[in-house]
Amino acid sequence: MTTPDPLFMRRAIALAREGVAQGVGGPFGAVIVRDGEILAVGENRVTSSCDPTAHAEVVAIRSACERLGDFSLSGCELYASSEPCPMCLAAIHWARIDRLWYACSREDAADAGFDDALLYAELALAPDRRRLPGGQLLRDEALASFRDWAAKADHIPY
Amino acid sequence: MTTPDPLFMRRAIALAREGVAQGVGGPFGAVIVRDGEILAVGENRVTSSCDPTAHAEVVAIRSACERLGDFSLSGCELYASSEPCPMCLAAIHWARIDRLWYACSREDAADAGFDDALLYAELALAPDRRRLPGGQLLRDEALASFRDWAAKADHIPY
Repeated sequence: MTTPDPLFMRRAIALAREGVAQGVGGPFGAVIVRDGEILAVGENRVTSSCDPTAHAEVVAIRSACERLGDFSLSGCELYASSEPCPMCLAAIHWARIDRLWYACSREDAADAGFDDALLYAELALAPDRRRLPGGQLLRDEALASFRDWAAKADHIPY
Repeated sequence: MTTPDPLFMRRAIALAREGVAQGVGGPFGAVIVRDGEILAVGENRVTSSCDPTAHAEVVAIRSACERLGDFSLSGCELYASSEPCPMCLAAIHWARIDRLWYACSREDAADAGFDDALLYAELALAPDRRRLPGGQLLRDEALASFRDWAAKADHIPY
């Protein structure tokens, strides 16, 4: 569908609130919908699962993919109680989700103490301009892995 | 350490090549190091685990956090056989990893068929300018989840 269903967003919001009440993690919920039905849900589980990638959207994506037995969620929509962070936006991209609906904005999340502005700024920089220390080494050796991939006729493209 | 150890990068490259040889996923490997020792490793498992978030860096981060029982990898370095995609860069940020070393560049990965330029471009846009269809709804209702969070005195900040 090209218009959102408020019922699914209310479920995402309820997940966010339940997660806080139960001490599961931060105030974020997500719902993945296919053909008008809920396929999977997720809430932020960073603290309780000791997993910094366990944002609500990622939790829901993993659950939906496990249920479908497919790494593609093409044909699905995602409802998020707050605008996804760059990690989750990228995960939504890799999962090939068709549509994203969100309720609170990035600015609302920042006001609540969840500010990802620095992360967006970091991603907009070239690698050698980033604040994150580090750098490049052994490129020539690593290119062999890409040659392996190209030479493997039966790999699954994705 | 502030200089990279080529041995750890060679391990990341070996993981990438082994992953391709074994059909586990794409040609990407990652190693997380703490105090000069390998804490966790990962290889791309997107296709074999039906998980679009199972990039090598995310697999390694999850494994390291599980091993430590902590959602923070402060004090750790990550070695990646190729420059991380935005999802993985953001995961590295949320995991509080101190340093990132990589071998192949984003451009090398694009030449091999793994092009994330569109994703970087998408992340640089304001939400209402993105190619990904969707939009905002029910902001007022969702703000309640942030009020819940603020009112909960015993939440774990992260």
